[in-house]
Amino acid sequence: MGPVGPHPAVADVRRAVREALADVQEGALVLAACSGGADSLALAAALGFAAPRMGLRAGLLTVDHQLQPGSADRARTVASLAPGLGLDPAEVLTVTVGAAGGPEAAARDARYAALAAAADRLAAAAVLLGHTRDDQAETVLLGLARGSGPRSLSGMAATAGRYRRPFLTIPRATTVAACQALGLAPWDDPHNEDPRYTRVRVRRRVLPVLEEELGPGVAEALARTAAMAREDADALDRWAESAYQDCALSDIGGSVTLAVPEVEKLPDAVRRRVLRRAAIEAGAPSGALSATHVLAADRLITRWRGQKAVDLPGGLSVIRRYDTLILAISPIP
Amino acid sequence: MGPVGPHPAVADVRRAVREALADVQEGALVLAACSGGADSLALAAALGFAAPRMGLRAGLLTVDHQLQPGSADRARTVASLAPGLGLDPAEVLTVTVGAAGGPEAAARDARYAALAAAADRLAAAAVLLGHTRDDQAETVLLGLARGSGPRSLSGMAATAGRYRRPFLTIPRATTVAACQALGLAPWDDPHNEDPRYTRVRVRRRVLPVLEEELGPGVAEALARTAAMAREDADALDRWAESAYQDCALSDIGGSVTLAVPEVEKLPDAVRRRVLRRAAIEAGAPSGALSATHVLAADRLITRWRGQKAVDLPGGLSVIRRYDTLILAISPIP
Repeated sequence: MGPVGPHPAVADVRRAVREALADVQEGALVLAACSGGADSLALAAALGFAAPRMGLRAGLLTVDHQLQPGSADRARTVASLAPGLGLDPAEVLTVTVGAAGGPEAAARDARYAALAAAADRLAAAAVLLGHTRDDQAETVLLGLARGSGPRSLSGMAATAGRYRRPFLTIPRATTVAACQALGLAPWDDPHNEDPRYTRVRVRRRVLPVLEEELGPGVAEALARTAAMAREDADALDRWAESAYQDCALSDIGGSVTLAVPEVEKLPDAVRRRVLRRAAIEAGAPSGALSATHVLAADRLITRWRGQKAVDLPGGLSVIRRYDTLILAISPIP
Repeated sequence: MGPVGPHPAVADVRRAVREALADVQEGALVLAACSGGADSLALAAALGFAAPRMGLRAGLLTVDHQLQPGSADRARTVASLAPGLGLDPAEVLTVTVGAAGGPEAAARDARYAALAAAADRLAAAAVLLGHTRDDQAETVLLGLARGSGPRSLSGMAATAGRYRRPFLTIPRATTVAACQALGLAPWDDPHNEDPRYTRVRVRRRVLPVLEEELGPGVAEALARTAAMAREDADALDRWAESAYQDCALSDIGGSVTLAVPEVEKLPDAVRRRVLRRAAIEAGAPSGALSATHVLAADRLITRWRGQKAVDLPGGLSVIRRYDTLILAISPIP
């Protein structure tokens, strides 16, 4: 009998981390963001194993959100695991969570700001995040419920700037099994069970019902949909960007003029992206600009019958003059 | 006080039918496909009201699937409503449902074949179908569960050949209210309550849980997602078609050769569509060709390290030779 290999779950998480780091330059520092939960604990362990074999240095960051009693102690406990996992440096990042955008968004904003600052300070090439296929499925369902289109279905990116998510195709159960096989005891964040959070309700109630009624494999299908939706949205953004350059007659100082004969040749999906881009360029705040707003402006092109100006957020007016569409902060000259 | 207008639900369904028929030529015949359920009964009534005011002729088709005892009587009852709704001609189409693809697909195939034949025979310009926003939401969820990408999220088309679906943005509750206001008694198909059908489980169990946990408006969000996903998929198909023409060096007789330098410039979403198109052109059966197959062929472009041929369904081989990709029924010469 040959040598006994690692547990299959351990092999899976290590392979995922190795693949995610394939293009990182030798000698660089990679950090695992670790809450102590099963996902990020398996991530930290896999990084500690893979990094030296790839000629990389590896460290750990853990964030103390100061939202629960004893959170500082717990963060120190997580950081204290680092040497045993082959991770050095290990840092506790203490943050103060505000209120903007609700409790989940505020905690996330504070966390990412701290991770980014630490990565800068330590000159890290990459920060690994432990989001799994189940997290991705939840994100897609949350995006679906917003109904804000294919971009909101594309979930989390596997790579976004310095962040990498090696586990987006790995089920949560695999990270739990990997921790168990490695003798690591994950910490279960009570927030992950609190039904006041929409994401928790999606996890506890929506996904199980979907799996029950539509068959197992729904989480996998959702994660696959996310990857395809992201590719599609990227390609369409690329098309729209190049079409915008062709259609924009001028875009100086809070005013954009588009050539209607160019714009109206485009397919619906691209034309509306061009209009959205033009509105933002002209000064509409992107967060306030809905699909309904863009559609209203689009009617000046596709259903032109001499309508008046269309008002968009940020005091923007869209007006058609002959074969041009002018987007400008009102009043339009 | 002015004259009393129609009930708001009646006004809604009439407006939807009027808008869907705006481009139909005067004097043409439009048919409503009517099962006797609330959706298609409201549709038939709205068509009977709107058609003469638009200079159109209007008729009714109802299909007897012969799947339930008394189905012939019921179909005759539905047809007998036609004169009272201002619809003439009215026909019962009797079909025999096979077994191919499962009971839902077989019934649907038989129904559409009969509707198409009748529309041809009667020289109808359009056939209206009563699918509502709730049907659309169910279709999106079913597509999501398959995970076969944005195209499967795009639900049903508002217009597809001679078929039109005026109610895709109208909630089912509105059609029920319209029938009630018009004194029409819809027939409730027991199939619509049979939990052996996946669609029924989506309606009875999945959508209510989504609404409960994610907030009301999920059905509307799903229908909106469908419309946007359809636009995106249409635009990308258009791009892929033109890219295929640019990349295909030859596509004669069960063999396609693509120019790799052209193909590899494309964004992922377009490149994979081009490969899919090439594989089908070369003879792979489209139904058997999965995203995984396309991805395997794609690696010959994006991760080229001198691999062997990739086998696709239908006996198709994909092989890279220098800067060309050859897709052909094996053996490749």
